[in-house]
Amino acid sequence: MKQLSLGFLGCGNIGGGVYRLLEEMHDELEKRDGLSLSVRKILVKSIDEALEINEKKGLHVPRELLTEHAEDVTADPEISIVCEFMGGEQPAARFMLEALSHAKHVITANKVALALNWDKLQAQAEASHVGLWYEASVGGVIPIIRVLNVNLESDRIDRVYGIINGTTNYILTRMAKEGKDYDEVLRDAQRLGLAEPNPAMDVEGMDAAYKLSILASLAFHGRVTCQQVYREGITQVSALDIAFGREMGYTLKLLGIAKRDGSVVETRVHPTFLPVDHPLARVDGSLNAIFVHGAYCQDMMLQGRGAGDLPTASAICGDIVEAALSERPHYPTFRNTPDPDPSFSFTDNWLTRAYIRLSAVDRPGVLARVSECFAKESVSIASMLQKEAPDDGSASLIIITHPAPEQAIRRALARLDSSICKLEAMIRVEE
Amino acid sequence: MKQLSLGFLGCGNIGGGVYRLLEEMHDELEKRDGLSLSVRKILVKSIDEALEINEKKGLHVPRELLTEHAEDVTADPEISIVCEFMGGEQPAARFMLEALSHAKHVITANKVALALNWDKLQAQAEASHVGLWYEASVGGVIPIIRVLNVNLESDRIDRVYGIINGTTNYILTRMAKEGKDYDEVLRDAQRLGLAEPNPAMDVEGMDAAYKLSILASLAFHGRVTCQQVYREGITQVSALDIAFGREMGYTLKLLGIAKRDGSVVETRVHPTFLPVDHPLARVDGSLNAIFVHGAYCQDMMLQGRGAGDLPTASAICGDIVEAALSERPHYPTFRNTPDPDPSFSFTDNWLTRAYIRLSAVDRPGVLARVSECFAKESVSIASMLQKEAPDDGSASLIIITHPAPEQAIRRALARLDSSICKLEAMIRVEE
Repeated sequence: MKQLSLGFLGCGNIGGGVYRLLEEMHDELEKRDGLSLSVRKILVKSIDEALEINEKKGLHVPRELLTEHAEDVTADPEISIVCEFMGGEQPAARFMLEALSHAKHVITANKVALALNWDKLQAQAEASHVGLWYEASVGGVIPIIRVLNVNLESDRIDRVYGIINGTTNYILTRMAKEGKDYDEVLRDAQRLGLAEPNPAMDVEGMDAAYKLSILASLAFHGRVTCQQVYREGITQVSALDIAFGREMGYTLKLLGIAKRDGSVVETRVHPTFLPVDHPLARVDGSLNAIFVHGAYCQDMMLQGRGAGDLPTASAICGDIVEAALSERPHYPTFRNTPDPDPSFSFTDNWLTRAYIRLSAVDRPGVLARVSECFAKESVSIASMLQKEAPDDGSASLIIITHPAPEQAIRRALARLDSSICKLEAMIRVEE
Repeated sequence: MKQLSLGFLGCGNIGGGVYRLLEEMHDELEKRDGLSLSVRKILVKSIDEALEINEKKGLHVPRELLTEHAEDVTADPEISIVCEFMGGEQPAARFMLEALSHAKHVITANKVALALNWDKLQAQAEASHVGLWYEASVGGVIPIIRVLNVNLESDRIDRVYGIINGTTNYILTRMAKEGKDYDEVLRDAQRLGLAEPNPAMDVEGMDAAYKLSILASLAFHGRVTCQQVYREGITQVSALDIAFGREMGYTLKLLGIAKRDGSVVETRVHPTFLPVDHPLARVDGSLNAIFVHGAYCQDMMLQGRGAGDLPTASAICGDIVEAALSERPHYPTFRNTPDPDPSFSFTDNWLTRAYIRLSAVDRPGVLARVSECFAKESVSIASMLQKEAPDDGSASLIIITHPAPEQAIRRALARLDSSICKLEAMIRVEE
């Protein structure tokens, strides 16, 4: 029997889930793997507060496990695995570095701290001959990290994309089903605890951008930083565009998209129309789903709970067991620097179809003048739909383009004469 | 740089794919993982024949790599990883045992040899302190083996099910799309090389049963043998039932289903109706897809190419790289004996809905008498549809039951009076 003591940094929802899983599965893990895992110390902000919160959740964590001093976890010689559940960049990253420097394996689900400090964390892990695991940092229970790092290690990945933020997917799903506007659904999600009081991290696409930078770095074997990720959130999405999109056979999702063609890399997070029969179009609520395409593996799709205490705990405990059994951890194999891989050239001129909604004055010749703007930039129009606006006599003009370079689409939009029409929305379309 | 020599047992489609991938990705794998992998010996039945076949495929394998003697691969002290591509139980299993006994890591995609000799193979691997990898043995490129063995190692899995045979899925997909009968589509699939000249292994559900026994053993942490898998193939499936099913909102798939409730285990492979909007209903052609449900992870779905030389090669090479980097392999953690786990009780009385098609004489009172047979066994009928048969004046009676114990459904069917109706088809329905 191998006895191992764990330390937790933080003990919120996810930490509580891991604590519960380890307790409930303790005997089973002894039987399965000859591992006796016990939690030895848990860092909390305030012991009294933590006891109260745990009490409310029905989680019985003995007072003597709790500490308000990080070094009781990061430097305790009895602890061999440290799990970080604090979230946010600091002090989580600093504490993880301390734990690694004391030769403890570190396991985290914290995409922010990881994405911003990967080079330091990995360098310290390698120097201390310990491991850094982060399966739960992207896609919750979806096994995308191990799939990229192990299963597809010998493949040549050219595309990774998917729904990697549950909060925005929940909001968009409800907007589509109920025809409600963004603000109303957001407030409701906040009331239900499904969106943060300050929702910017999710709704501005930052969470997805952090995750995409991790996925792209692993998939393309070179560092892609968050700054390389083009980002649009869902705050400008209107119920009107969701409804028009549906009429034209599309469902709106916030996608993270990373593509590679030779040394040219594009990484982007933005609201995206997908054909209603696309597998991702049916991934609703807080589910996440990720597509991978490689030269050899071809298409692969992985789907599962992107959040939630127990699914995330399942992914983290998979890491814990691997760390406990492992003598020599794998490291992701890429140029790990704070800077993007110098062999990549990042493009902002990807090929995309676009859904464009204009409000236009309703008089002869307008359509021709709008069309001309696109023609001049060689952006070909796939379909066009005109809707009369009930109130002010102006018309909604909806255009779907054929695939065209992003910058050509933007130049075409810049050519539009503001005296006859106004750009109301531009949403990219993937097939 | 770590230099490693590989030996191949066999070099058919998959072996050729692995050879090609290792050649094309050689320099990239040096850069990524500091691994220089080269193939040193390949066992073939006839060197001259192999050269001719490779020539046709455009695969340039030097003659001096080929041998007709297994021990040139299994006993060569220079070879550290042996990949088996022969298929079938013997001599593949015997050669793998030889390689393991010579302390070589073994990698296989051979579900038959593995399912039938797992205990011996694993015991020899453990005794020799080497590893046995088989990610490609189930679901091709789908990472199900590593997900069960590593990601979900600390979870409590209660369901694994999915489409795990590409040939039958191809046949059923074409039967549904073209309204053709089984025999016709099978012949066409054989002509296209998508079904074997002797198709029994696939169409009788044996291939799926071997795979399901592997999945169930890993998921439930106890040995489930092929003999424990209830099995019905697709040879009796008619275009008529596919058409009637579609009318009622169902799509027909050959599913492997493993469920566990406490110590009670059910494992079955049979044609299954799924609601048309079920994610598995849209997995067409040679795609595979697997659902997993656990106490913590909740629902997860993995989808990808279940066959094909390059996707399978991608999965195998993921194993090769892990084997090459690994000092001490993981072993699946279950009672590994040739016999089923004694702590499991295998049930053949699972709960299921059933689609039942009867041909009945068209006269008053028949419906009542049929209904009574089901009522007597407490099998509740969810919907019933009567179709007039154009030719002989008899009617097709289609019944969908509510979930009921399998044996109760069978007893109800046994009660039917053969002078008024005849059982034409019974197909289970999953939601």
